[in-house]
Amino acid sequence: MSKVTFQIEEGTPVCVECNAGDNLLELARRVNVAIDAPCSGNGSCGKCRVKLLEGTVESPQSRHITGEEYEDGWRLACCSRVVGDCVVFVPDIASAYQSRMKTADLSSPQEVAIFEACEQGLAESGIHFVNRFRSVVVTMTPPSLEDTMPDNERFSWALEEALGVDKVEIPFPVMRSLASKLREHDFTVRVKGVLTEAGFRCMEISDPEDRVIAGAAIDIGTTTVTMVLTDLETGKLLAKGSSGNGQIRYGADVINRIIQQSRPGGRKKLQDAVIRETLNPILVKLCQSAGITARSILQLSVAANTTMNHLFVGVDAEPVRVEPYIPSFFSWEDLTAHDLKLTANPLAPVRIAPNIGSYVGGDITAGTLASGIWNMEEMSLFIDLGTNGEIVFGNRDFLVSCACSAGPAFEGGDISCGMRATDGAIEACEIDKDTMEPELTIIGDEGQRAVGICGSGIIDLISELFRCGIINAKGLFVREGRRVLRDQHGMGRYVLVFPQDSETGREVSINEVDIDNFIRAKGAVFSAIDTLLQSVDMTVDMIDKVYVAGGIGSGINMKNAVNIGMFPDVELEKFRYIGNSSLAGAYAMVMSDEAAAKTGEVAANMTYLELSTYPGYMDSFVAACFLPHTDARLFPHSRQEC
Amino acid sequence: MSKVTFQIEEGTPVCVECNAGDNLLELARRVNVAIDAPCSGNGSCGKCRVKLLEGTVESPQSRHITGEEYEDGWRLACCSRVVGDCVVFVPDIASAYQSRMKTADLSSPQEVAIFEACEQGLAESGIHFVNRFRSVVVTMTPPSLEDTMPDNERFSWALEEALGVDKVEIPFPVMRSLASKLREHDFTVRVKGVLTEAGFRCMEISDPEDRVIAGAAIDIGTTTVTMVLTDLETGKLLAKGSSGNGQIRYGADVINRIIQQSRPGGRKKLQDAVIRETLNPILVKLCQSAGITARSILQLSVAANTTMNHLFVGVDAEPVRVEPYIPSFFSWEDLTAHDLKLTANPLAPVRIAPNIGSYVGGDITAGTLASGIWNMEEMSLFIDLGTNGEIVFGNRDFLVSCACSAGPAFEGGDISCGMRATDGAIEACEIDKDTMEPELTIIGDEGQRAVGICGSGIIDLISELFRCGIINAKGLFVREGRRVLRDQHGMGRYVLVFPQDSETGREVSINEVDIDNFIRAKGAVFSAIDTLLQSVDMTVDMIDKVYVAGGIGSGINMKNAVNIGMFPDVELEKFRYIGNSSLAGAYAMVMSDEAAAKTGEVAANMTYLELSTYPGYMDSFVAACFLPHTDARLFPHSRQEC
Repeated sequence: MSKVTFQIEEGTPVCVECNAGDNLLELARRVNVAIDAPCSGNGSCGKCRVKLLEGTVESPQSRHITGEEYEDGWRLACCSRVVGDCVVFVPDIASAYQSRMKTADLSSPQEVAIFEACEQGLAESGIHFVNRFRSVVVTMTPPSLEDTMPDNERFSWALEEALGVDKVEIPFPVMRSLASKLREHDFTVRVKGVLTEAGFRCMEISDPEDRVIAGAAIDIGTTTVTMVLTDLETGKLLAKGSSGNGQIRYGADVINRIIQQSRPGGRKKLQDAVIRETLNPILVKLCQSAGITARSILQLSVAANTTMNHLFVGVDAEPVRVEPYIPSFFSWEDLTAHDLKLTANPLAPVRIAPNIGSYVGGDITAGTLASGIWNMEEMSLFIDLGTNGEIVFGNRDFLVSCACSAGPAFEGGDISCGMRATDGAIEACEIDKDTMEPELTIIGDEGQRAVGICGSGIIDLISELFRCGIINAKGLFVREGRRVLRDQHGMGRYVLVFPQDSETGREVSINEVDIDNFIRAKGAVFSAIDTLLQSVDMTVDMIDKVYVAGGIGSGINMKNAVNIGMFPDVELEKFRYIGNSSLAGAYAMVMSDEAAAKTGEVAANMTYLELSTYPGYMDSFVAACFLPHTDARLFPHSRQEC
Repeated sequence: MSKVTFQIEEGTPVCVECNAGDNLLELARRVNVAIDAPCSGNGSCGKCRVKLLEGTVESPQSRHITGEEYEDGWRLACCSRVVGDCVVFVPDIASAYQSRMKTADLSSPQEVAIFEACEQGLAESGIHFVNRFRSVVVTMTPPSLEDTMPDNERFSWALEEALGVDKVEIPFPVMRSLASKLREHDFTVRVKGVLTEAGFRCMEISDPEDRVIAGAAIDIGTTTVTMVLTDLETGKLLAKGSSGNGQIRYGADVINRIIQQSRPGGRKKLQDAVIRETLNPILVKLCQSAGITARSILQLSVAANTTMNHLFVGVDAEPVRVEPYIPSFFSWEDLTAHDLKLTANPLAPVRIAPNIGSYVGGDITAGTLASGIWNMEEMSLFIDLGTNGEIVFGNRDFLVSCACSAGPAFEGGDISCGMRATDGAIEACEIDKDTMEPELTIIGDEGQRAVGICGSGIIDLISELFRCGIINAKGLFVREGRRVLRDQHGMGRYVLVFPQDSETGREVSINEVDIDNFIRAKGAVFSAIDTLLQSVDMTVDMIDKVYVAGGIGSGINMKNAVNIGMFPDVELEKFRYIGNSSLAGAYAMVMSDEAAAKTGEVAANMTYLELSTYPGYMDSFVAACFLPHTDARLFPHSRQEC
């Protein structure tokens, strides 16, 4: 037996006995030591860095660890095996996704724009923001020896009169506190609840002054979780926030998460990671920020992909991953906050935007609702770029959809210097064709130095490298210069920021492996669009509108995206970036019964195309793995100037 | 600070720091050391005996502790104060109520008779044992690439066809395991659930061979809990068992329990004591005995008094105790096993027989249902003797009811040698008028020696002592002899068993305090009957039938009960002992939807008379506190032979 001590940055050390030969990352997971491992332990992402403080481990030197770092004791946990007692330092990378929790400034018009646009757009399509939740004050005559009616009958009678309903339902958690609440507030209480077919269902009894009834709309992305709290009566946005999805330490993509959840105890771990570690802290934070109690949240809605939905409700997702790719459910009725232990009123219904296939989930059906394409005459293409890419095409008459396994490249994953679009990310870039010198736009305050590069920056960079003839159609470096360097194996890279100029003291660059990864990602997107159009016998020139949604950010340069063959070569005016449409759809579903019903309808009418088994898709994908494409006629506007 | 160590018999010692002057019983309760204290710490019952092993405590000598015992270190915990470090031995009395869990032998006709009688009686009144629970096997075509319907739709379609219903509801706990269960059983599964207005609600998916669907009928008495498991399809009794109510350590009567639950954390403690410590162990045991899983229990019903009902659901019972005596609820809808964390199918509805007042609860409404008096033409008196006494009078046209605080005397409480009707209890006795020697009937196998005396034995004993002129109408000893002894204060007692002949080596006797306590109890019962009759302008001779129910046992000698003025002096043929009618009523409610509905009707039509505020009741009570009564004309058949 060997003893491994994990010395966690800003945490309590964790000691564990294990066998020689045990994998260090596995061991850490076993004892719940969080180590970021987006590639889920295959050595490709290089994010699971730990530092050996005492003892040794058996660990090859990886391309992600420099010789100097290796000397210092840095190792990739996923490639390390225990050989004896040792102490390893675990950087606080893993909890970083939690500390990255952000609340948005709702006084910024930009923040509220997508919700206003969604509400207005839906109103024009006849969907009104109306719900059946109510908040009322009721007063009763206190009991006496002459009037010994039991509490629940006294309360029901008063409430029936106040609301003009025939029957009041008092569920267990409310009933349980009824005696105390009535006496605490001298038989004048605030009642929050919902009108039902039979009458009224009480959800909360509180102080008469405690007016607000709230809804929480949640977008559970594979990488990022975003949430908005709204006032169910007034429609006002109360708070908005986001953080990384705590499941990230179980893998960056849905496939690795499904593999992890299939292990013993895995379902609970993955569910805890998203609910207890991610959603509940945001709920608490947003309630504080809005000055309301969590029990005032009477409705929740969730837009998430099929796998996230399964992991969220704690249902085995393994059948989603393996042939014949069967989700346990498309839609799920009667789910409550209590079922999932969400920090909200335990009776609050949780509306899940329905899935329509294994890889087209509620995030897309909610996004489609918000985009409004289901009610348009124009032929519209809806592209949601998250950790995966999903595409919907159609109009009011029909809708087809598919998913492409684009991977996390658009969010900075699978790219050595990739990062999400936060402070320090290069979000845009131009390159001087002659000098090959870049001009960078970096997210953050003035003077912010570069840390890495995010999705929109990578699109610009590759487009510019291609335009300037620095890389060829296969993504290989074909020009030499101060910024084009090669390692000992001859692999080329382009240096955006030299070590002395970066925030971290490490070079920010893109190499041929990164570019290849990215080309596969953009190839997956384009070939999916191409195949989807073919499946309905249509062509690129029939597209009237292109809605681009997702976390890639408003900074995306459509021209560059077309230039590299990621999006179809249509007039640039047809493109529109609509932001986080999944969240906008979830917002509509939480505020409006009609919107929720319409999402169900849209989902029921949407055809799902399983690309992996669609004839010709693989050929189309291979053809798209060039800059811009093997068939250059598809991209007449793509330019290579050298 | 002093350190007290509780050396628990057959348990782990518990150490606690406390202040000098702390009460020993309070201290034990604080650290969850169970010490039996039916009188809840007022020094009257003498049950909280502990033995000092080291150190000292400040503790007066009580009449419950002999001089020799005091020398040996025995103390009453409730009267002891800490003065310094000490070690006390805690006898395993407290957990005795758990170890006394008993399962009944259902092959005995006597055990099943009350259930058969109940079913037959109700059938004659038009109430059928029919319910909507179903257990069916469904087979689905497994999914394939050509048939990718999600699990829940596949399952619903198959089930709709199998049952001929339009809609299938799959609640969260079932939905959550659907994917795994379908695959584990190759898409052929057993489904258990209930037909609803809309269709069918699934409650459990299991192995096709696992057929049984069960109901659990529960009688929660203040002192004893009894339960029967039944097959919901066939009506067969599967198992029956009982144990003491774990709340007993918080006081023997409902008043003390309410006081305890009003303390911080008290509601949870009292609820845990009845659910976690009492009901769940019985449920586990009965399921084992019946060879079924707890998840197969799809319906539960509970018959309990108003306070027990409040403590069971965890609702503040304080308003029940204090004027104006307001229960939080009479009836409670939509309660589930999950709400209460009962060891059963979490979705199983829990039917609570409705209360009709603060001191006439569901045990009486269920018992009234089972007695059948609600459908009779004869004027009937229904007397339920438990820890309290409750009376119902009437017929198919009207029903009035009241409760009397008879106290626990009929169950052996408040009596120095009193005990419940279990092995070693003297359950009947006759006394030779001349020699004053008793002839005893002791519960247990042949050769069983006496431990104490139970309710029916006490009735016999007092009746015989009175008949033989050993005690007078006030319950004071007026003859002398070998068996009539007096202590140093002159208090008389009658020795039933001398120390050398008892099981415990301690004398079994009854003293004047015991007799006084008992006379108050029987006086409470009779005056309640008397007052109830007066309230409807009726008299004793109008009574056609007297049904006696409750834990006092079938051994009750009606003639003796009349002789001491406990029951009205009507012809003995009119009396009938009907056993645990609360449990019989609960059994009907669990098996039959009609019976459950009828219990609600019976409750709604029953008038509740609050004795404590009824004019004349106190006078009636005082007059009844004699043997047989101050007005001897009321008991023409009562005999005093000397």
